[in-house]
Amino acid sequence: MNNPLLDRGQQVLRQQPFSMLLGAELTVFEPGCAELRLPVRNELKQQHGFVHGGAVSYLADNALTYAGGSVVPGHGVVTSEFKINYLRPAIGDALVARASVLYAGKTQIVCRCDVFAVTGAEEKLCATAQGTIAPLGAPSPSGN
Amino acid sequence: MNNPLLDRGQQVLRQQPFSMLLGAELTVFEPGCAELRLPVRNELKQQHGFVHGGAVSYLADNALTYAGGSVVPGHGVVTSEFKINYLRPAIGDALVARASVLYAGKTQIVCRCDVFAVTGAEEKLCATAQGTIAPLGAPSPSGN
Amino acid sequence: MNNPLLDRGQQVLRQQPFSMLLGAELTVFEPGCAELRLPVRNELKQQHGFVHGGAVSYLADNALTYAGGSVVPGHGVVTSEFKINYLRPAIGDALVARASVLYAGKTQIVCRCDVFAVTGAEEKLCATAQGTIAPLGAPSPSGN
Amino acid sequence: MNNPLLDRGQQVLRQQPFSMLLGAELTVFEPGCAELRLPVRNELKQQHGFVHGGAVSYLADNALTYAGGSVVPGHGVVTSEFKINYLRPAIGDALVARASVLYAGKTQIVCRCDVFAVTGAEEKLCATAQGTIAPLGAPSPSGN
Repeated sequence: MNNPLLDRGQQVLRQQPFSMLLGAELTVFEPGCAELRLPVRNELKQQHGFVHGGAVSYLADNALTYAGGSVVPGHGVVTSEFKINYLRPAIGDALVARASVLYAGKTQIVCRCDVFAVTGAEEKLCATAQGTIAPLGAPSPSGN
Repeated sequence: MNNPLLDRGQQVLRQQPFSMLLGAELTVFEPGCAELRLPVRNELKQQHGFVHGGAVSYLADNALTYAGGSVVPGHGVVTSEFKINYLRPAIGDALVARASVLYAGKTQIVCRCDVFAVTGAEEKLCATAQGTIAPLGAPSPSGN
Repeated sequence: MNNPLLDRGQQVLRQQPFSMLLGAELTVFEPGCAELRLPVRNELKQQHGFVHGGAVSYLADNALTYAGGSVVPGHGVVTSEFKINYLRPAIGDALVARASVLYAGKTQIVCRCDVFAVTGAEEKLCATAQGTIAPLGAPSPSGN
Repeated sequence: MNNPLLDRGQQVLRQQPFSMLLGAELTVFEPGCAELRLPVRNELKQQHGFVHGGAVSYLADNALTYAGGSVVPGHGVVTSEFKINYLRPAIGDALVARASVLYAGKTQIVCRCDVFAVTGAEEKLCATAQGTIAPLGAPSPSGN
C-alpha cells in the first residue's frame, strides 16, 4: 500500500527533533486531514499524573499544521495561531489528534482538531482546537 | 532573599516530568505574574532550526497557568483554554514567557502571556497568548 | 408540533433588545444544539456591502450561548469566551449559525459553531467559532 | 487640531451601516492604536440589562480592525480571526474599546484590545481580545 504523501509527512516528522523527543507518530496524512499519535509515557506528564497540557497543545498544533499542509503539497506551511479548549484530563495509553481542513484559501487555511485520550479500544475527547495555517510564500512564522 | 512563593512554584515545576524533559525554569513567581525560561537546544526544534511551535505553546500554557495560580495560593489550578498567535520564528539562546493576570474571579482567572526569543541582551516578541485558568474546586481539567 | 424548549428559547431571544435590533430568529433549539438565523439587510453591513464581522460574531456568540444553555435547562448561562475565524465574505439572503455542544461539564460547556451565508438553496461556510459557556451558579459574566 | 488619519477613519465608520445602527464612535486613531466608543442604550442590551456580548464583541472586533488598519494606511484590511474573554457584565454609560498593534508583518498584523465599561469617571475592564488583521492584497475576508 503505497502512500507517498504519508511517507513524505513521516519523513518531515522525523526531521523535527521536538516531535522525536516527545515520541509523536504520523498515522494518517491525506488531502484535508491528518492524525498524530503520541504514546503516553511518564516524561510527558505533569505533577498529577496526567499528560501535560503543553504536550496536548503540541499535538494539536502539529496536527493542525499537518492538516493545513496536506492541501498545499510541496509548499511549506506555518501555524499562524490556534486556540485550544481542554475538556478532560489526558490519561490513557496514547493521545490521538485528528485534524481536518475547514477552509483553504490562498493566504490562510483554517483547520479544526480533536484530541482523544485512548485507553484500549476506548477514546475520550480531551481537547479541541481551531487554528490558522499559512502557506509559505505568504509567510507568518510559527516555527512548526 | 527568601521567596517562599517562588520556592514553592519551582518545586511544583520539578514535579512536572514534561517541564523537566523540556528544561523549563521558573524565574519569576509573584502574585499576579510568572516568568518561565526555556533554554534553546536542538531537541526543542523543528525541521527549519526554529524552536517548535509546540514548545512555544507549552511555555505560554505553563506561564499562563502559573500566573493564574499565583493569585490563589494553596489552590490547584488548571488551564481551561488558551489562544496563541505566533509572530516571529523562535530563534535564540532561550525563550522567556511572561504572563500576568488581567482578571481574577471566583471561577475563572484570565491571563495574558508574551513569549520572547532572547539572544544575548536582545529580546524579540515571538508569540502572544491569552487564556483562562480555573481554580480547582471549580475543576476544568487541562492536565497542567 | 409542541416544542417547549424552542418556545422558551424564542421567548428569551425576544427579551434581548440587541437580538431584536439585529433581527435574529431562533430556528432550532434542542438538547445539545441551536440554530440562529439572521436575515441580511443593509443595516447589518459594512462599507463593502458584506455583513459586518461584528454581526457575524454576534450570531456565533449567541448561538454558542444557546447551545450551551440547551443542556442545562432552567439554568442561566453566560459566555465566558469564544474564538472566531472568518473564512469568506458574508453575503446572501441570510446568515445561519449552527452550534453544538462538544463537552458539558459542571463548570464549563464547550461548544462549536459554524456560520453559513445562505443564498437561495445554497449555503457557504463563512465563519467558524469555538467557545466556553458557563452555567450560572458558577457565574462568569458575558452579558449574553 | 488637524488629524487626517482620524478624519479618514471616522469617514469609514460612517460608511458602515452596522456601526451606525449600533452608534459607535471612533475617538482615537493613530499609527498603532485605535479607540472606539459605544454609548450604552437599551437596544444594545440582553435580557438581564447588561450590554449584549455580541455588542461587546462587535466593538472589540472593529477596534482590532482599526488598529491593524492604522499601520497600513491606504490599504484595506480585514479581520481574519479573533478571540475574546468576557470578564465582567458590561454595564455603564458607555463601552470603550482600546486596541493596539503587537506585531505588524507583511501578511498579518496581530492586535490586542481591552474593552472597558465606563460609568462617570470610572472604567472597568469588561472584556479582552486578541486577533489577526490581514492587509488586503493578501485578502482573508471578514466583512469588517
